Amino acid sequence: MTAAVPTVSDAEAAVILARCDELARHSSLTDGIERTYLSAEHAAVNYRVAGWMTAAGLTTWQDAAGNQCARLSGSTRGLPALMLGSHLDTVRAAGRYDGILGVLVAIAVAGRIAASGRPLPFALEIAAFGDEEGTRFGTTLLGSRAVAGTWLESWWDLRDAGGVSLREAFLAFGLDPAKVGDAARAPQELLGYLEAHIEQGPVLEEEGRALGVVTGIAGARRFLLTVTGSAGHSGTPWPRRRDALAGAAEGITTIERIARAEGLTATVGHLRVFPDAVNVIPGKVEFSLDLRAPDDADRDRGWTLIESALTDICGTRGLDLASTQVHEAAAVACSPRLRAAIATGIRSTEPTTAPADAARPDEGGSDSGPEAPADDAPRELPSIAGHDAMAIAAITDVGMLFVRCAGGISHHPDESVTAADVALAVDALEAAVRALAADYPAL
Amino acid sequence: MTAAVPTVSDAEAAVILARCDELARHSSLTDGIERTYLSAEHAAVNYRVAGWMTAAGLTTWQDAAGNQCARLSGSTRGLPALMLGSHLDTVRAAGRYDGILGVLVAIAVAGRIAASGRPLPFALEIAAFGDEEGTRFGTTLLGSRAVAGTWLESWWDLRDAGGVSLREAFLAFGLDPAKVGDAARAPQELLGYLEAHIEQGPVLEEEGRALGVVTGIAGARRFLLTVTGSAGHSGTPWPRRRDALAGAAEGITTIERIARAEGLTATVGHLRVFPDAVNVIPGKVEFSLDLRAPDDADRDRGWTLIESALTDICGTRGLDLASTQVHEAAAVACSPRLRAAIATGIRSTEPTTAPADAARPDEGGSDSGPEAPADDAPRELPSIAGHDAMAIAAITDVGMLFVRCAGGISHHPDESVTAADVALAVDALEAAVRALAADYPAL
Repeated sequence: MTAAVPTVSDAEAAVILARCDELARHSSLTDGIERTYLSAEHAAVNYRVAGWMTAAGLTTWQDAAGNQCARLSGSTRGLPALMLGSHLDTVRAAGRYDGILGVLVAIAVAGRIAASGRPLPFALEIAAFGDEEGTRFGTTLLGSRAVAGTWLESWWDLRDAGGVSLREAFLAFGLDPAKVGDAARAPQELLGYLEAHIEQGPVLEEEGRALGVVTGIAGARRFLLTVTGSAGHSGTPWPRRRDALAGAAEGITTIERIARAEGLTATVGHLRVFPDAVNVIPGKVEFSLDLRAPDDADRDRGWTLIESALTDICGTRGLDLASTQVHEAAAVACSPRLRAAIATGIRSTEPTTAPADAARPDEGGSDSGPEAPADDAPRELPSIAGHDAMAIAAITDVGMLFVRCAGGISHHPDESVTAADVALAVDALEAAVRALAADYPAL
Repeated sequence: MTAAVPTVSDAEAAVILARCDELARHSSLTDGIERTYLSAEHAAVNYRVAGWMTAAGLTTWQDAAGNQCARLSGSTRGLPALMLGSHLDTVRAAGRYDGILGVLVAIAVAGRIAASGRPLPFALEIAAFGDEEGTRFGTTLLGSRAVAGTWLESWWDLRDAGGVSLREAFLAFGLDPAKVGDAARAPQELLGYLEAHIEQGPVLEEEGRALGVVTGIAGARRFLLTVTGSAGHSGTPWPRRRDALAGAAEGITTIERIARAEGLTATVGHLRVFPDAVNVIPGKVEFSLDLRAPDDADRDRGWTLIESALTDICGTRGLDLASTQVHEAAAVACSPRLRAAIATGIRSTEPTTAPADAARPDEGGSDSGPEAPADDAPRELPSIAGHDAMAIAAITDVGMLFVRCAGGISHHPDESVTAADVALAVDALEAAVRALAADYPAL
């Protein structure tokens, strides 16, 4: 969907995409993007993003957990803040927009407001979280959980693939583990949290819409499963084999079947074979399971079915099964008030519809071009992916704006967004913030 | 089966087992055994084994490919040699007998002959090959193929997991790549090759026999298969997924089903997932397939069925499949003359049977104890596992003696043999050599 009325946002979108390209060069990989929590690349992008925040007119600081933060005062000093944010870390072999785009859109919005001469009745903050993906230490949302004050002491001994503990990584980054609590924000300091993010799914693209309102974030449970058999020579006859990989393969096929039947999303993304030699029957296989559903009860029932099926498979094959839950996040509902503000923001980008604060029309707007939806009510959709908003929901209301991405692809170098959609996202998020300001202090 | 008449071999067996324990300590792992070609551990065990060869009365040298060799002259100097051998390298997380036992049994046999005052009418050589398993460079039998003169120039650029090429490893080990041809032996220098080895299967144990005669070695083909889909966020809905691991898992289950139905042995021992992250759909999976059958035509037909099934699975799932054959070894038949000598050697260890050179009895010997077979004819059985004998078959006749191992287990720390069986193996291999000497020059 191309904005019918060109605005300054076209130029801003070009800057945002160029900045995404620049941040993508801060990678631990020579042939792709990987930027993990508390790495040298993390420090480098914090420094660069802080510069952009400052240029936008904000005051900046790096918090006690390594998140890059910024604040724009409201009409008076010391007001509570509306927080905008997303994350700067990536998965391995990542794209350049997941998380990063949300931070840069937030900076553009704050820059507009700073330059507008029309201060908000509240402060505006930006949080560029240092860890959402959990790539380095296996536990996600470390950055936003520090801000939410839900940091766990048990995390200090988590170790990365190189054996470095989270505590050691803090020290190496110049942070004091004893002070991580300083990153935590009190609920009364915040009015809400808004996050722009690529959809990571195909819905908006399939419906010809640039933007969408997130209704809630699916809960996820993650398990580490270990199947243990007995290593042996690859010439061992069938009756003597206790092949852990053969059992795991049957298990993965079964997980897929159950998850599809039950309407869950299930992914086995990590798998490791021991001893992993061409001529040795695998004696042990460990693999991950990421299980998601918009409804927590559906997800939990699915896990019961999966665990039972895996137990049966292993029993039949003479294999041992162990499973450990390594992550659980309850589904999070986006706040109705923030959903309404984002919907208002999206409608404001559509020239054929009524003004942002008007009653939502039930029809009309169908003449706005071949890509436009028949109904101009902004699309509401759930997020199956997790987001920093899940962590921040512990201390304040959250809302999310989805931006169309090509082919629904994310966590992949082919992640792609268009400049036109980014321009609309900046316009919509600014309008959402202004809509909240118009309602304040009813917010 | 305990030898009814105690001999010096009981003490020798104890020495052999102690030496297996000692060599097991030369490992690149702190918590298991791994000893790869041209490693520091390889150099260390060559040095140690050379000492034992010297102590047994043999002349020793390390050949141009890093194999540890020894020779005991026959009744006159310069005679052709009967070669005894096996290998000193291991898989990862290995046992301590696969290969090693055969080298140490050979040294014990040569030592007996050296000490006997009854020189053979031919020379006796021992080859302790430096690479049979292919653990480091992925290609097996490097040591024995150097001796067989079937070394390939293309191997020089093979690289280990650390990026070191085979050429670089040669130089680091003090070997000259240009001289690897010096390790090759001419057919006219050799009278044959005998190898003692643990069975790596359950047949002898199930039948209560200590030793067996190998009829031939199954051919093997190895493939590296790559399934390519598209990486993506773990929240991606089912219709948009092109999950390489889901496809590979279905493929592995199908390989197992086909191989069982067709009487083949199939092992997927290596599997790697890319990018291998909990929250990313696998975009690529590579895995190995090791396919074996006593009959090459059966094996090749099986591969055709498997490849077709994998192609169908990947087609249905929108995945790409690539397969590369990385190894092919034709089935090798053991020489009838050497099989007969080994059978004679085994019969000589059974006190109730006729002398080694007598006609084979059709019945009798059933009073030799609860473990003894009803028929005292030595058990003949194929080897499903590959052995150095496969490579050496290119230049001379080969024969193999199998030694019972506990539970059919090999390529695993639980590999186990008994001292009594090892004592019988030394007796049998010595008797086989003496039987060949008795027939010489008809050999």
